[in-house]
Amino acid sequence: MSTKIAWPVPQPELPDDVHGALAAAARAASAAYAAARHRFTRDELAEEIADGADGTPTMRVDQLVEDAIAEAASRCGVNLLSEEAGFVDNASAVTLVVDPMDGSANAAAGVPLCCFGGVVAVDGRATEALTTWLDTGRAWHAVAGRPVPYRTSGRTKLAGAAVSMLRPKPASADAWWRVEQAAGRVRVLSSTVLEAVLVAEGSTDAFCDPGSDTHRIVDLAAAMVTVPAAGGVVLDAHGRPLEIDPDLTRRWSGVVAATRPLAEELAALVSG
Amino acid sequence: MSTKIAWPVPQPELPDDVHGALAAAARAASAAYAAARHRFTRDELAEEIADGADGTPTMRVDQLVEDAIAEAASRCGVNLLSEEAGFVDNASAVTLVVDPMDGSANAAAGVPLCCFGGVVAVDGRATEALTTWLDTGRAWHAVAGRPVPYRTSGRTKLAGAAVSMLRPKPASADAWWRVEQAAGRVRVLSSTVLEAVLVAEGSTDAFCDPGSDTHRIVDLAAAMVTVPAAGGVVLDAHGRPLEIDPDLTRRWSGVVAATRPLAEELAALVSG
Repeated sequence: MSTKIAWPVPQPELPDDVHGALAAAARAASAAYAAARHRFTRDELAEEIADGADGTPTMRVDQLVEDAIAEAASRCGVNLLSEEAGFVDNASAVTLVVDPMDGSANAAAGVPLCCFGGVVAVDGRATEALTTWLDTGRAWHAVAGRPVPYRTSGRTKLAGAAVSMLRPKPASADAWWRVEQAAGRVRVLSSTVLEAVLVAEGSTDAFCDPGSDTHRIVDLAAAMVTVPAAGGVVLDAHGRPLEIDPDLTRRWSGVVAATRPLAEELAALVSG
Repeated sequence: MSTKIAWPVPQPELPDDVHGALAAAARAASAAYAAARHRFTRDELAEEIADGADGTPTMRVDQLVEDAIAEAASRCGVNLLSEEAGFVDNASAVTLVVDPMDGSANAAAGVPLCCFGGVVAVDGRATEALTTWLDTGRAWHAVAGRPVPYRTSGRTKLAGAAVSMLRPKPASADAWWRVEQAAGRVRVLSSTVLEAVLVAEGSTDAFCDPGSDTHRIVDLAAAMVTVPAAGGVVLDAHGRPLEIDPDLTRRWSGVVAATRPLAEELAALVSG
């Protein structure tokens, strides 16, 4: 029998200087996820109710949270680029690029590792990022070009490194195993956005999609601001440029690392 | 450069009916971990400063938290069986069997997935268990023979199941891969005690050590009360009885599952 997730979802603790629309989107995500957990069972949250603009199925929990974010974006008069809805034009120079519910499977099941991740983009350039961890209210904020109060670990070599990865998939199993053998310790938390901020704050050394091309730009956008601000690097394992693009069918294999040498060693190992 | 972990460690939110010594130990663990994070960097928390009674190295963070628990046990007049200290005799009929810092590597690095797990044992029988998740203060309490307010998922088959595992080790790599191939989704959170309560509350379907014989009784004791109270099963993959025994060099490959059929399917796959 599928049960409800009993734990509360707090409002995020945001710094005062977060862009108003980004803050509103993050608050809307927490409130909508709280309401969804209160109303629906785990199975109901996980039910696939549509196909998203990214070409993957949309769970009920994704839809409920994204709807709340879209409403916040409209209220704030900014555009939205998001996983399920695609590009929503509200005639603004500013676009929020958002992963409403990173770690959807965790979010639906009650594994307390799911996040809101978003950036403010102006003319295709991300100027500011916000990540919130929904079960705790922890937030990571970064403004492009400004220092942040956290730093990556500074590790430069894969030997001995703590690396998080997406779970193995058939197309990436060999690369997954190569990284596992070369690293000091692997984890699979199933939340790209959370795993990226753990690299940014120095809690793990790296995170990667080992070549399965699962990442969309909405999965990586927040990391692309947050991780460099903390001294780290985000790149694609196959060397493709990471671009904010409304075409959500584009895919990458993101590599997030404490330093450039570590990112490049991981990318080389993944791309074989 | 190794930095400090900036996030606070709250006191756990405990029900009123937790055994006084068990509650005191859990509170001591949270306070000691909070103080350790405030004082030491990640590298200092991870430094191996001794060898424990279980035959594995003791990190500074393990030692600081266990010392605080040992003091609480003495103050409450109960014995203690714990990872680093082994059996501490305070001339009581009651023994706390405790994993002071489950997920030590997470705890030292700042990956926010580490727990206190403990049981009250009388004459070698566990009567009550408490798990606390240190970064959030969430607590799971269970009294043997009494219903708990959470239930396992009830899943009976591995196909499609969400299974957490210890990370692959050389001795268990083949079995790790067999489980990965047979399950619907795998995660590696690196905290046995947390992964066991996620099974108990129905957020994941199962957790296992895929045959590496890493588990000591202190890792499994809380799950042995909590998971059956929620409808699930805890057993050893190789069929050995799980016994509260002061000899901490004994090892098991724990399997924690939503139901007995799922536990037995996993154990058969692990034992090959």
